Amino acid sequence: MNQISRREADDPRSQTLRLPADMPLALDAGVALAPLTIAYQTYGALNADRSNAVLVCHALTGDQHVANENPVTGKPGWWTTMVGPGLPIDTDRFFVICSNVVGGCMGTTGPASINPATGRAWGLDLPLVTIRDMVRAQAMLVDALGIETLFCVVGGSMGGMQVLQWAASYPGRVFSALPIASGARHTSQNIAFHEVGRQAVMADPDWDGGRYAERGLQPTKGLAVARMAAHVTYMSDTALQGRFGRNLQDRAAPTFSFDADFQVESYLRHQGTSFVERFDANSYLYVTRAMDYFDLAADYGGSLARAFAGSRTRFCVTSFTSDWLFPTSESRAVVHALNAGGASVSFVEIATDKGHDSFLLDVPDFLATTRGFVDAAARARGLPERGAR
Amino acid sequence: MNQISRREADDPRSQTLRLPADMPLALDAGVALAPLTIAYQTYGALNADRSNAVLVCHALTGDQHVANENPVTGKPGWWTTMVGPGLPIDTDRFFVICSNVVGGCMGTTGPASINPATGRAWGLDLPLVTIRDMVRAQAMLVDALGIETLFCVVGGSMGGMQVLQWAASYPGRVFSALPIASGARHTSQNIAFHEVGRQAVMADPDWDGGRYAERGLQPTKGLAVARMAAHVTYMSDTALQGRFGRNLQDRAAPTFSFDADFQVESYLRHQGTSFVERFDANSYLYVTRAMDYFDLAADYGGSLARAFAGSRTRFCVTSFTSDWLFPTSESRAVVHALNAGGASVSFVEIATDKGHDSFLLDVPDFLATTRGFVDAAARARGLPERGAR
Repeated sequence: MNQISRREADDPRSQTLRLPADMPLALDAGVALAPLTIAYQTYGALNADRSNAVLVCHALTGDQHVANENPVTGKPGWWTTMVGPGLPIDTDRFFVICSNVVGGCMGTTGPASINPATGRAWGLDLPLVTIRDMVRAQAMLVDALGIETLFCVVGGSMGGMQVLQWAASYPGRVFSALPIASGARHTSQNIAFHEVGRQAVMADPDWDGGRYAERGLQPTKGLAVARMAAHVTYMSDTALQGRFGRNLQDRAAPTFSFDADFQVESYLRHQGTSFVERFDANSYLYVTRAMDYFDLAADYGGSLARAFAGSRTRFCVTSFTSDWLFPTSESRAVVHALNAGGASVSFVEIATDKGHDSFLLDVPDFLATTRGFVDAAARARGLPERGAR
Repeated sequence: MNQISRREADDPRSQTLRLPADMPLALDAGVALAPLTIAYQTYGALNADRSNAVLVCHALTGDQHVANENPVTGKPGWWTTMVGPGLPIDTDRFFVICSNVVGGCMGTTGPASINPATGRAWGLDLPLVTIRDMVRAQAMLVDALGIETLFCVVGGSMGGMQVLQWAASYPGRVFSALPIASGARHTSQNIAFHEVGRQAVMADPDWDGGRYAERGLQPTKGLAVARMAAHVTYMSDTALQGRFGRNLQDRAAPTFSFDADFQVESYLRHQGTSFVERFDANSYLYVTRAMDYFDLAADYGGSLARAFAGSRTRFCVTSFTSDWLFPTSESRAVVHALNAGGASVSFVEIATDKGHDSFLLDVPDFLATTRGFVDAAARARGLPERGAR
């Protein structure tokens, strides 16, 4: 993290909900986390009967800055293809909420936040958090905003895990749910890649047992390696080959050295170095771990169908053909469980070569099908038609 | 590397060919490498007309110890499913040769070898090597053994690249060729994963610009991370899920910590720590780089067919359905080029969930088809039938 992002962890340029010490977050790890800060952004206006709220759940290294300029990077929000005026999640119609996850580093309590008990960053003293803990914290925020039922909960990748957890934990509070490029569990291969990333961070002597911040250090090299490894998994083989192939970077011939001869090397190195400017290494450990622990069926006696039994939520499950990190088979398992539980579910597999990252990109078929599902759900919810207000 | 493997780099327990200073290896990097040592193993006996020699080409972290106990690890050779008495590559019939590649660390000249000019390990002073350089060195060994035409050149992964290079560079010297789980180029994704591994090594302060050996250091953490990342790519998602799934390691419940809760984590960590005992970090950089640079078509004006034009070699190209690192499409591209060049080619795609590593494992269909092809080639070569001697 650079100075800007370090400050953001404790004094975010976002709205914040600061819960007092007597309103702790009960963690799956068996301990209570307090006081808790939740940093969030909202877009659009809540309607009179509070029926038009959409909760967007962000992915591993995402944050609450869905559709506004990111205060750390100065770049546009991460989902400006999806969320905004006239877009599928139309901020002219819906009240859109996104909060930074517990364990994150953009203002919600995480390992980079100051532990009030010690005056130092939590570091590894922060208890481990789970996807369910993240969702519990979001529910506290939704409560505080005075919203009983969310019109929609939507998110991709780790965001999709939160969507599924919302539907399972609070079925009566979720009118419609869109888990995208996700699954109901982290697979063995998913865990393996995360473990590689964590070991890369922990191998960096500047990680220093997680106490780097107070010593003015940064495990930038280790975290950059972790990001590089992860980034390869977010793209498809075809997309990499199409975009970079074996093209050389600003040179006519290989240098016979370990320089970044190939464009793909240069690109990856850039992904690594830019990531470490904005993200906290300990947060990376916590949030990857939360994903690893996610196994929704396990919480329901091994039956995913039971997690959704009797659900009246309208589901739209979306996967992408070239996503090998969360392949269609994982989405299909969710669909089967929803069918078995008697839920209302649409299943969309989008043909694209853009890999796991498709949910963040301008993939017209994906945006169009999402728009169609959201519009139909809004109609069922009795919300005014698009452009009617 | 531990003490045993460090010694092996310069004083290998193998046969060695020590080429004098006036017989340098001409490298693609444009420089000459001398003196050159090639460490190799042989199995079986060369027949009277020198027509039964099989050259086995090893993969990235393989070595010459194909079918004997490895002197460093004490484990069996790496291809005891394939090479041995009565096996598909039958050491009762064939004279099998395998040499450690240039750039390796098991006795052939590589960055861990002593540079006679300085008395210190070569380290990064060793010029970069290519797959073609590896093959040129092998040709010098084959010459020294008095063999004009190899009955067969065979190898998987990087070994398969060498097989293709042999067929292109020395078409008259290769009677039959078996590139397995390989391709004629390293793809963008392949390069990306290798770059992650190299950056992991170089991020380790104990790598020390490649001069770790003379300072008594070892970039063990970085190299272990590199190996972990690579190892995930050698297995299929299905194989990982089948073998480890989400099973916990010696515990009944998650510990809510960064311990290796999951079996797959424990397995990967073990892969990392055992690898660094036997392999040199600089060698890892050199050999991965050689693979990255491999693009056989580029040496023939962009036409892979031209690389094999007029070839009289008998090819058997093998791929595995679950190999996502060298997918069937890469093998098929080779087959198309061979067809276009008018070569004799069999193409076998083996259905297995064992991923890229299938070529090293007991995959009966693979071993049976290889046996069939080798036997037919031996008949065409006029060699005695199996068991006839």
